[in-house]
Amino acid sequence: MSIPTTMRAVTAPTPGGPDVLEVGEHPVPKVDAGEVLIKIEAAGVNRPDCLQRAGNYPPPPGAGPIFGLEVAGEVVHAGSAAQRFEVGDKVMALVVAGGYAEYVAVPESTVLPIPDGLSIEEAAGIPETYFTVWSNVFDRGRLASGETFLVHGGTSGIGTTAIQLAKAFGATVITTAGSDDKCAACLGLGADRAINYQKEDWVAACKDAAPDGVHLTLDMVGGDYVAKNWKVAAVEGRIVQIATLNGPSEANFSLLMMKRLVHTGSTLRAREVPFKAAIARSLEEKVFPLFADGRTKVVMDQVFALDDVVEAHRRMEGSSHIGKIVLKP
Amino acid sequence: MSIPTTMRAVTAPTPGGPDVLEVGEHPVPKVDAGEVLIKIEAAGVNRPDCLQRAGNYPPPPGAGPIFGLEVAGEVVHAGSAAQRFEVGDKVMALVVAGGYAEYVAVPESTVLPIPDGLSIEEAAGIPETYFTVWSNVFDRGRLASGETFLVHGGTSGIGTTAIQLAKAFGATVITTAGSDDKCAACLGLGADRAINYQKEDWVAACKDAAPDGVHLTLDMVGGDYVAKNWKVAAVEGRIVQIATLNGPSEANFSLLMMKRLVHTGSTLRAREVPFKAAIARSLEEKVFPLFADGRTKVVMDQVFALDDVVEAHRRMEGSSHIGKIVLKP
Repeated sequence: MSIPTTMRAVTAPTPGGPDVLEVGEHPVPKVDAGEVLIKIEAAGVNRPDCLQRAGNYPPPPGAGPIFGLEVAGEVVHAGSAAQRFEVGDKVMALVVAGGYAEYVAVPESTVLPIPDGLSIEEAAGIPETYFTVWSNVFDRGRLASGETFLVHGGTSGIGTTAIQLAKAFGATVITTAGSDDKCAACLGLGADRAINYQKEDWVAACKDAAPDGVHLTLDMVGGDYVAKNWKVAAVEGRIVQIATLNGPSEANFSLLMMKRLVHTGSTLRAREVPFKAAIARSLEEKVFPLFADGRTKVVMDQVFALDDVVEAHRRMEGSSHIGKIVLKP
Repeated sequence: MSIPTTMRAVTAPTPGGPDVLEVGEHPVPKVDAGEVLIKIEAAGVNRPDCLQRAGNYPPPPGAGPIFGLEVAGEVVHAGSAAQRFEVGDKVMALVVAGGYAEYVAVPESTVLPIPDGLSIEEAAGIPETYFTVWSNVFDRGRLASGETFLVHGGTSGIGTTAIQLAKAFGATVITTAGSDDKCAACLGLGADRAINYQKEDWVAACKDAAPDGVHLTLDMVGGDYVAKNWKVAAVEGRIVQIATLNGPSEANFSLLMMKRLVHTGSTLRAREVPFKAAIARSLEEKVFPLFADGRTKVVMDQVFALDDVVEAHRRMEGSSHIGKIVLKP
């Protein structure tokens, strides 16, 4: 297989709405010794891509301008220090940038084989949400069997992943979503209670569902949700913040104190390669068996051609999607 | 020694300023099997006493209306299940209420002997701040040798205690205080840097003093200090909130997320007896040796007669004090 010197890829020369995204010609990335070059067959679209496009989430230094945080495809070249994967292997990977393209070079330690039985489009929808959920819910948040877990946005990529993994590891799962259809989808994934926040006061509904309080909350909303997450939390409850879509918060830290809460959070993209590699190993060990027996799956919303990337971002921002949005170069 | 049936003690029939405090006659407390009765010789005054008097910090259920959270004195009666202390022993104790009085009954497990060489007035100034600092800085905050520690209000009871213990356990200590005299006192206690927040932008000064950031902050201010504590924090830094004197906060949780901070907090007064007993044992084991060799001491501000309790609260709220304010019944 010959590797071309240029490829088609998506950038945004100026920040703005979905229309600023442009498909253009770019050099195929060089491959370092410890990297593999993946010919991308599918790439996941994520909420941070929209924030980056709008100018609100600058990529980390050195990441380059090409969008996209996760891919699936075939290894077409392995660097001289690569040890595990060979040309022809089907893989998926978390990437720091460069997913909306035809080729991407990735440190081998953050590359994973594709779990048996999954399509290439499904595989492309795994890395960003599974790395994020594993790292925040199980490592940072230390969710334990028997605890009550709350995740907002239950039908988002993060939400569908968090519901399934939390259930698989023995938690009681409460989620919020914005329509009855979305709530039904969450229950179908195993949530014990799905609250339609458009029709119900979710704080009151959550207190009814968990009178002793929520042990761990995974929140990407921020804003007014911070005080509400504290209200529904159990004594010594933990809250892990992974985004703040609603912006800054008014917060009375005396409540955090009275309940002895732990509020923490993290971002994944800028972390060092060994940190991501450790999550990759945890996923292979702890989560791959769940794909095999059907206890977790990738919930797919819609697949778009790379040329339709503008439509793909519109769908993400319209918030009517359920599950992953994927691009095919 | 005969124990009377009534005693003089301080209550506040209505909430308000220092003037609402009244010295009156109250029954001497009954002693449960696991308790000892202490004839109080000195009682510490603490900031939460002022909040309680103003109606902003209701005592926990069952605590009774008599003010005061810490005492030193002599055991005059031991309950039938008390095992360690005997009539005549000089002791100090953290109490859930009832310190501004002549007698108080205390679960024996939260009573401590008086470290050698300390006066009864100094001993009365130990429990509230040493229990609070140990629990929040070392247990909850996990301060480690070599880390940078920030405590606000360096000349308060909490501040003077935190500076000395953090230094004794190997931390670099930064503190804030409101005058040059107070800053000099903090440096005298071992602080590496004391910032006069009346004359300097403490955030800028703290960043100068700790370019890599603060690992642990002990904060009792809240309000606008929350965002500032986050600004000076190191990546993976911890903030432990023990009061919110400045009220609610505006906080951008994206900063907490980007730095992967852990913001937690606690209150001590309402906690169960075994929790307090465990802290008492840690203090005996880890902190008593520091009293013996002078690495920590009780910084005394002023001793008032019980009848002058109104003046004692005025002094606390005037904030010109340095160290502990103590009452003598």
